[in-house]
Amino acid sequence: MPQGCVFIDGEYVTPEDARMSIFDMGFVWSDTVYDVTSTWGGWFFMLDEHLERFARSCAGFRLENPHGPDEMRRILAECVARSGLENCYVKLQLTRGVLKDHIRDPRLGEPAFVAYAIPYAWIWGEEKCRNGAALHLSGVERVSSRAIDARYKNYNRADFVQARFEAYDQGCDDAILVGADGALTEGPGYNIFVVKDGRVATPDSNVLEGITRRAVAELCDEEGIPYACRRVEPEELGAADELFASTTAGGVMPVVRLGDRPIGNGHAGLLTGRIQSRYWRKREEGWHGTRVEDILEAA
Amino acid sequence: MPQGCVFIDGEYVTPEDARMSIFDMGFVWSDTVYDVTSTWGGWFFMLDEHLERFARSCAGFRLENPHGPDEMRRILAECVARSGLENCYVKLQLTRGVLKDHIRDPRLGEPAFVAYAIPYAWIWGEEKCRNGAALHLSGVERVSSRAIDARYKNYNRADFVQARFEAYDQGCDDAILVGADGALTEGPGYNIFVVKDGRVATPDSNVLEGITRRAVAELCDEEGIPYACRRVEPEELGAADELFASTTAGGVMPVVRLGDRPIGNGHAGLLTGRIQSRYWRKREEGWHGTRVEDILEAA
Repeated sequence: MPQGCVFIDGEYVTPEDARMSIFDMGFVWSDTVYDVTSTWGGWFFMLDEHLERFARSCAGFRLENPHGPDEMRRILAECVARSGLENCYVKLQLTRGVLKDHIRDPRLGEPAFVAYAIPYAWIWGEEKCRNGAALHLSGVERVSSRAIDARYKNYNRADFVQARFEAYDQGCDDAILVGADGALTEGPGYNIFVVKDGRVATPDSNVLEGITRRAVAELCDEEGIPYACRRVEPEELGAADELFASTTAGGVMPVVRLGDRPIGNGHAGLLTGRIQSRYWRKREEGWHGTRVEDILEAA
Repeated sequence: MPQGCVFIDGEYVTPEDARMSIFDMGFVWSDTVYDVTSTWGGWFFMLDEHLERFARSCAGFRLENPHGPDEMRRILAECVARSGLENCYVKLQLTRGVLKDHIRDPRLGEPAFVAYAIPYAWIWGEEKCRNGAALHLSGVERVSSRAIDARYKNYNRADFVQARFEAYDQGCDDAILVGADGALTEGPGYNIFVVKDGRVATPDSNVLEGITRRAVAELCDEEGIPYACRRVEPEELGAADELFASTTAGGVMPVVRLGDRPIGNGHAGLLTGRIQSRYWRKREEGWHGTRVEDILEAA
C-alpha cells in the first residue's frame, strides 16, 4: 500500500484505512467517475481544468457531487499537505453509493466523494516514461463512446486491462486500442500522438479529452509545430517518424517500439524530446500551477 | 443495508462490516467477475452451472480464483445458513486485488474472493416480476463483446445504468439495449425473449449466457414450445405477441409494455404464464436443486 493521505467519509485517513462498502454501486456497476491531477514541487498542474472535467464527468454519469470546486480544492490541498509529499498523484472520485433498494434504482444512491494524494506515479515506471516504451496494437476493441462515453473519465476499464495483458504477452510495455469504427483511440490512461513530417496528430473521438493532451497542444503551438486533433488510422502508427503519449502520470512519454518494430531509430524522437523537455521545464516553473500552500492559506 | 452474511478476507461478517480497499483494482479498473445464484426454500438452483460459468468468467478475465468449486459450495452454503434466510440472493465475486506497484501491472494483483447471501431480490420488485413490467428500448448502445466479453459476467455496467436512467425518464421500469451491429442484446441483468406465433426467440450474441435462460430453454422443451437462440432485431419487440425476460433475481418475468405501447393486450401473455408457472412450481419442488443443508453436512 502506498504512503499518502485519503479523504473518505469526511475524514482524512491512511491508504490502509481507506475502505468502502462492497455494496457501493460505484463498484458493483462501475458507476464511478474520477479524475487524476498531480503536484510537482508543491504545485498543482492545471487544477481548474481537472476540476472542470470532473464536473463534466459527474454530470455525464448523472452523479451529484456533494462538494463544490472550492471545497474540493481545499480537500485536495489538505490531502497533499498531510501526505508530506511534494510530488503527488492526486485522485478524486465519486461513486453512486449504496442504494436504498440495494439492486435497482440508481436515483436512490447517495454519491460518495473520495480524494487522495499518494507518491507521484509513473504509468510505465520513470525510466520508460522519460526514455521510451514499447506499445502493442491491441486486438481488444476499445469500448465505444456510444455505450460508455470516454469523455467522462470512469472506471469501466476491463478492455484496457485485457489489452495490457495482451501487450505483456507480446513483450511490450502497454497497449493502444482501436475503436469499433476502425480508428485509433487511446491506451490505458493516456492519449497517443503520431509525428509525421514534422506534424503532430492525435485521435479526436472515442478518447478521453486529456488535460496533458491539452498541454501538448499548447506546447506545440509555442514550438511552432503543426498540431491536429483528427481521425487517426492504426496504420499511421507504423508509418510514423515518432510516436509519443501523454498522461498526468508520466507527462510527455516517448514510444520507441510498436510490437517488434522500432519507431524511427528506436530512440525517443527529436520533436518528442523538444515537447517533453519544455513540458517538464515549464512544470518546474509552476506553469498552469496552483501552489498547495496558497490554497490552504486562503481557506 | 440488507440483512445477511458476507464472506470476505476469510471471515463471515455482516453486510455493514463488509468493506474493501478503495485501491482494489477490481474497483478501480472494474476488473471483477461475479455470478449470482439463489436459494428458494433452502435449495440452491443450478448451483454447478453458476459455479462453472463463474470459472469461465475468471478465466476470461485472467483472474485466478484461490478457491475450488467444493470450497466455494461450502462458503456459499455457510453464508446462507448464517444469514438465517430460506430465500436468498447469493453472490460470488473475484476482484483483481491491490497491486504491488499500485497502478500498472494486473499480473501483480492477489485476487480477492467475496461471497454473500442476502434476502432474495426481485429485480423489478416482486409484483412487476410476477405480473409484468414496462421496458424502454434504449438509445444507449450495449458495450460490445469485442471490447468486454458479455459472456464473462462482470461489473463494467455503466451503459446499463445510463440506460436505466433513460428508462425511468420515459416512465418505464427498465431498459433493453441494442448492440453496435444493430441486433438486440439484453437488459441490466436479464435476457429478453420474444414470443411470436407460438415460438420463442432470444438473442444469441453480445449477451450473458443466462442460467435462467438455459432453464427457460428446458421449460420450452417440456411444454413443446419451439425455442430459438438467434439474432433478434429490435423491431421484433414491437411486433411480438408476448415478451418476457429471465434472471436469477426474478425468474421468468412478463414484459407488458414497450415504451408507451402495450404488448399484446397489456397483460402477461398466456405462453409466458405457462413458462413462468412451470418455473416456480418446479423450483418449489427442488428442480436442479442442491439443498443447503446437504452441502453443510457433507463438509
